Amino acid sequence: MKLASLKNGQRDGQLVVVSKDLSRCVAIPAVAVTMQQLLDNWSTLAPQAQEVYQALNRGAVAGETAFDQAACESPLPRAYQWADGSAYVNHVELVRKARNSEMPPSFWTDPLMYQGGSDDFLGPRDEIDVVSEDYGIDFEGEVAVVTDDVPMAATPELAREKIRLVMLVNDVSLRGLIPNELAKGFGFFQSKPASAFSPVAVTPEELGADWQDAKLHLPLVSHLNGTLFGKPNAGVDMTFDFGQLVAHAAKTRRLGAGAVVGSGTVSNKQGTDWGTSVEEGGVGYSCIAEVRMIETIRDGAPKTAFMKFGDRIRIEMFDNDGQSVFGAIEQQVVKAQG
Amino acid sequence: MKLASLKNGQRDGQLVVVSKDLSRCVAIPAVAVTMQQLLDNWSTLAPQAQEVYQALNRGAVAGETAFDQAACESPLPRAYQWADGSAYVNHVELVRKARNSEMPPSFWTDPLMYQGGSDDFLGPRDEIDVVSEDYGIDFEGEVAVVTDDVPMAATPELAREKIRLVMLVNDVSLRGLIPNELAKGFGFFQSKPASAFSPVAVTPEELGADWQDAKLHLPLVSHLNGTLFGKPNAGVDMTFDFGQLVAHAAKTRRLGAGAVVGSGTVSNKQGTDWGTSVEEGGVGYSCIAEVRMIETIRDGAPKTAFMKFGDRIRIEMFDNDGQSVFGAIEQQVVKAQG
Repeated sequence: MKLASLKNGQRDGQLVVVSKDLSRCVAIPAVAVTMQQLLDNWSTLAPQAQEVYQALNRGAVAGETAFDQAACESPLPRAYQWADGSAYVNHVELVRKARNSEMPPSFWTDPLMYQGGSDDFLGPRDEIDVVSEDYGIDFEGEVAVVTDDVPMAATPELAREKIRLVMLVNDVSLRGLIPNELAKGFGFFQSKPASAFSPVAVTPEELGADWQDAKLHLPLVSHLNGTLFGKPNAGVDMTFDFGQLVAHAAKTRRLGAGAVVGSGTVSNKQGTDWGTSVEEGGVGYSCIAEVRMIETIRDGAPKTAFMKFGDRIRIEMFDNDGQSVFGAIEQQVVKAQG
Repeated sequence: MKLASLKNGQRDGQLVVVSKDLSRCVAIPAVAVTMQQLLDNWSTLAPQAQEVYQALNRGAVAGETAFDQAACESPLPRAYQWADGSAYVNHVELVRKARNSEMPPSFWTDPLMYQGGSDDFLGPRDEIDVVSEDYGIDFEGEVAVVTDDVPMAATPELAREKIRLVMLVNDVSLRGLIPNELAKGFGFFQSKPASAFSPVAVTPEELGADWQDAKLHLPLVSHLNGTLFGKPNAGVDMTFDFGQLVAHAAKTRRLGAGAVVGSGTVSNKQGTDWGTSVEEGGVGYSCIAEVRMIETIRDGAPKTAFMKFGDRIRIEMFDNDGQSVFGAIEQQVVKAQG
């Protein structure tokens, strides 16, 4: 099943079921008005939504309209939980290497995870408002899941069963603010402004063979200002699967239905030390910082600039038939109006 | 105005207006069913709720019932944002001093703040479920505010105007998990399980002269297993007021209506180096860790134990007439059922 939330002037948008090919959609007010309502009562309501999805894929249904990705909120326009892991440890190794610090071996067995803000997600086509280019504006292409209720201290096995939806994320990061903020010891806050998610959220079942072992085995395609920047496979070099990430988040507390848990920046080593850029024939990266780290390690200093006002980032994923699975995140960085 | 959310088997509880003396309450379904609904439309709906509050304080109103603090959820049973500051820098100084590290001078001008989980707050009388006593279970008595929508990069002045409600918090902390977690560099996660808030949330206007300069000028009274543990004044030694804390949270992103922003553990220096325990005639502390730090600094090692299964913590605040302002958080630590 594929689901989205259309902008409707309300804080939580209008839940719609979207056809498999992303061409048409239909609201299901008799089932649920918002995505959160559906998630709050998933076991009861999801089968009803699934029936509508099947009918929509078979042919015309009453009330259907064309599906416009640009009219979407993020699937959850706001959420009660946004926990973002760092499952692609290559990304973490690179960060450390570029600043000449060793990565603790425990990072291969104990996931890094930070608590993100979830009260005001951006829509997938919304502008990224930033006060200053000096903040070091970067995108981070990731995969995320939405869970049902998860009990405290759930095992990874149980956590895997609680995954209800899969999405893409642009976890916007302000690199210039990170060093001072992490030095304070309390983690990210101002350096992680609002994230945006793909127009469409998809159930694991719908992903078929592309969803295995709680990982999504497809390339994550990022274009920066229209040029291919990366296409690493999200199923490759993912040290912790989503079951492990959700279990990490739930170790000392329950997760409420609708909790969003992210993978961290998708990154492949490609059999090399740190991966290779698209320019050099590799699969590239899912954030600018990694390219800058490679440049720092190799050349002594970064040369690729962070994003400037007017720059555009597009993040998308295609199945093996070339069909966009989640629709595209496509955002432009603009100067925030003071 | 005083407001609460009664447990009703739904995830967001039943919004009620509570009489000033906390004896009676009434639902206002024609205005809003849940606290979040009221906050989502505060400027329109709050005046209507305020009228009910005034009528309730004048005498009997249709549908009123006795108000039972034990029947309450936290005012927001789940929220879209929980950002907790460390405004009482004495608390931070103590932590650092106890581990022989200097506190950076910037901590006096740049607030510490961490992003907390908000998808599953505990009710004010709910048990604190913890898997193991070895986690180092501690309470943290704090004040928190709930905001309206706050624009990105809001000034502290503007942020002060956006404060809609004030509450107390028990920010449960697992001290044994903190060192390893902070060493990873991404801040708290597993070391900060679900928080609980006071039964009642109160508008700043209702607090009258006790609310000045976006600080709450009353003692925060904590009892551990029935014995007075602390009564520091929340208006004293608060380095950053709530306007500054909210502005810090909003520096690079908007805050959505219903965002909860905490003060951090209330702590008074009392004209001494680090404050004094109740036992020694001082106003005491709002968490066990501070007493242990004093013991470490003075005696070389802590002697006060963290909370054990069965231990009870009560956190409350009284106005100058001895009236409980927010009702009492009263929780018992129990072993989580695996």
